[in-house]
Amino acid sequence: MRLEKLRQEVCDANLQLNKSGLVLFTWGNVSGYEPDEKLVVIKPSGISYDELTPDLLTIVNLEGKIVEGELNPSTDTPTHLELYKAFPGIGGIAHTHSTYATVWAQLCKELPCYGTTHADFFYGAVPVTRQLTAAEVKDNYEQNTGKVIVELFKERNPLEMPAVLVANHGPFTWGANPAKSVENSIVLEEVSKTALWTKDLIEIDKSIPDYLLDKHYLRKHGSGAYYGQK
Amino acid sequence: MRLEKLRQEVCDANLQLNKSGLVLFTWGNVSGYEPDEKLVVIKPSGISYDELTPDLLTIVNLEGKIVEGELNPSTDTPTHLELYKAFPGIGGIAHTHSTYATVWAQLCKELPCYGTTHADFFYGAVPVTRQLTAAEVKDNYEQNTGKVIVELFKERNPLEMPAVLVANHGPFTWGANPAKSVENSIVLEEVSKTALWTKDLIEIDKSIPDYLLDKHYLRKHGSGAYYGQK
Amino acid sequence: MRLEKLRQEVCDANLQLNKSGLVLFTWGNVSGYEPDEKLVVIKPSGISYDELTPDLLTIVNLEGKIVEGELNPSTDTPTHLELYKAFPGIGGIAHTHSTYATVWAQLCKELPCYGTTHADFFYGAVPVTRQLTAAEVKDNYEQNTGKVIVELFKERNPLEMPAVLVANHGPFTWGANPAKSVENSIVLEEVSKTALWTKDLIEIDKSIPDYLLDKHYLRKHGSGAYYGQK
Amino acid sequence: MRLEKLRQEVCDANLQLNKSGLVLFTWGNVSGYEPDEKLVVIKPSGISYDELTPDLLTIVNLEGKIVEGELNPSTDTPTHLELYKAFPGIGGIAHTHSTYATVWAQLCKELPCYGTTHADFFYGAVPVTRQLTAAEVKDNYEQNTGKVIVELFKERNPLEMPAVLVANHGPFTWGANPAKSVENSIVLEEVSKTALWTKDLIEIDKSIPDYLLDKHYLRKHGSGAYYGQK
Repeated sequence: MRLEKLRQEVCDANLQLNKSGLVLFTWGNVSGYEPDEKLVVIKPSGISYDELTPDLLTIVNLEGKIVEGELNPSTDTPTHLELYKAFPGIGGIAHTHSTYATVWAQLCKELPCYGTTHADFFYGAVPVTRQLTAAEVKDNYEQNTGKVIVELFKERNPLEMPAVLVANHGPFTWGANPAKSVENSIVLEEVSKTALWTKDLIEIDKSIPDYLLDKHYLRKHGSGAYYGQK
Repeated sequence: MRLEKLRQEVCDANLQLNKSGLVLFTWGNVSGYEPDEKLVVIKPSGISYDELTPDLLTIVNLEGKIVEGELNPSTDTPTHLELYKAFPGIGGIAHTHSTYATVWAQLCKELPCYGTTHADFFYGAVPVTRQLTAAEVKDNYEQNTGKVIVELFKERNPLEMPAVLVANHGPFTWGANPAKSVENSIVLEEVSKTALWTKDLIEIDKSIPDYLLDKHYLRKHGSGAYYGQK
Repeated sequence: MRLEKLRQEVCDANLQLNKSGLVLFTWGNVSGYEPDEKLVVIKPSGISYDELTPDLLTIVNLEGKIVEGELNPSTDTPTHLELYKAFPGIGGIAHTHSTYATVWAQLCKELPCYGTTHADFFYGAVPVTRQLTAAEVKDNYEQNTGKVIVELFKERNPLEMPAVLVANHGPFTWGANPAKSVENSIVLEEVSKTALWTKDLIEIDKSIPDYLLDKHYLRKHGSGAYYGQK
Repeated sequence: MRLEKLRQEVCDANLQLNKSGLVLFTWGNVSGYEPDEKLVVIKPSGISYDELTPDLLTIVNLEGKIVEGELNPSTDTPTHLELYKAFPGIGGIAHTHSTYATVWAQLCKELPCYGTTHADFFYGAVPVTRQLTAAEVKDNYEQNTGKVIVELFKERNPLEMPAVLVANHGPFTWGANPAKSVENSIVLEEVSKTALWTKDLIEIDKSIPDYLLDKHYLRKHGSGAYYGQK
């Protein structure tokens, strides 16, 4: 029952990702997590968004074993699994090669927080992973991609920083549910774009003051939030 | 009666803002002012443009007290109020996080007047506020945002310069009515974009000659204007 | 009869210009020329493209006197007239503030010929006018804009270079008829964009070799052309 | 029979190219190859995509002689023919002047492999041709364009590098069939765009590690591929 609902949510989120203009062809995937059964619903690999329906989605357990579905899950599934295992409280993950977030990933640079749009969603600079070693790429590449992401969050709260840039590759974002992970991908792309032009012209590399970051992040998130309706 | 008309205008202007491509999600708001009753009609906070109707708008007085409506007004309402109190003659205000105007705001740089497109609408460089202090951010942040804007206009005429960049944040624009404030947001975005690429490649930082600025601004505005139909 | 046909062509070309995405609001205009009667059909000033119909167009003679129509012609009419007087053989003129061509105009730089796309349409670098003097701006500004354009073509063939950048302002393009002038505006915008990024990253400022320019321009134009169908 | 199918495929691929936003006007062409009869089906020169139907396509043999069709083939036909003669196994070729790939061609720079998006499709930096000499441009220009492309592939496998940048001109891409050649044009444009902004901001000019390039290219191509469904 909950899994059926999650299937629908994951399908809707994948279609929303496609509609947002962040993906070319099949270059993106969204998954959702059912924490009680510890199961992940994910887009099948290489399937066009045009033909995606909830029943085509693949369900795997946290070891990556297919529990339901006839299609191979996204090649990036082992990356998703590492994140669900390490980040309690997240219910959806999105991966894209969206243009501007990918530029930052290709630069192997963290995305500085230059403005309040960024601060409304991400509590500080969006981190970038280290490059994977040759050994990490050779075997279990996709799982190791997840592991280098998790490395970055030893000292970070993934609920306050629901995005990461994988060096030379592209972004992953997450959230309380699949739709939120897609929303974070859209926001990340927009702030990646404004930050790119800001960095291109800025004379001294400076982010916004911490007190402004705090104000914006905390007026939208947490117990003192006062943005939107109750 | 006048308030009902203003409700419709503010709703239309918010929908126009959304249609213009300047906003993602709910990242923008337009308000309108009724000077006789000193009331402000404004978009409610966090409501999607898709579901916005005139009756959902919130009406507040200049102290920010809700006079009509069940929804919280935009979080940025105190900023709007400071502007209506300080700038006699304006009837509408728009706020966005539009990409290129936001870049200039993030650069904490005034937007130079590099061409006649800019001069047709804004009489000189569009000013940028100083950064707010930690104390100004901590309490009454949105009101203080309005105050730092007003500071800039001690020596400027807000009717000749219907736009401002808030440092690290984004633009506010205004006009005789809500629709005009949105038009100014659209123009500001376009001139922010052309100015960005101009600045990126220009060898000596120069704006257009004053006499050309005067010509273009004054052929569209004021008693000697000769653009358009009578 | 010929004038009625021209009215339709000028109206269509204005609508095509709008559809091409080169104009915001009413920031553009197209005219057409009837050489036997020496009359110019032009868009009226400040009229929205949505409401433009052939009968709303204004017809003026080469002295700028309205011959037909109740609406003021485009403010830029005197510029168009100077070009029709000086450039025999052109039948249409378009003016826009399109983003990337405007950047080059704001840079006050000629647009270098970096590639064959450019060479297919413009026989060398697209020239930029000198800045107008204060006196030229003060009186007869729009006519003087035409005169500084004409200055540039003393040594150039306007049929081989159907475009110009007005310093601090924007582009004018022309052609055998109104539709061709719009086509040249669209091409100018595209090559302005590619040239901008080329210039941004190029190490030594070099245009394409003359022999390649000749080849591309001449395979599409003139007696030896072999592009397209006969 | 096979030729009729190829006509349809080439027509569809040309329409797909147009729909992808990579071409303005008629600035692009796709061809397909029938290896048994050694015939090439190609877009006719200067024909609008709106009016393109399979029966309008021109069929030529490898010497460029028209075998079927009343319209002149694309001016670039001799370039296509050189590639079909030199690259066994390719079944379709696409040529565009798409914005960002053209920038790289205008820079006369190979397109570095900065990320995995690129590595998924092109096995290393996309090469750029040398500039043609005056003699090569003067006579048999389009054929010589093909020859300088072929020069670059003496040491390269065209099946692993299905794209090239012609200096000062634009890209050609190819693939197993016409649709694949268009897909490669779309991918080339996207990676050209991300690489442009990466190059603009990167401090040390570095491509991705070889082991990462290998992993990404080989997980999608060849006998060990594991992307998508079987």
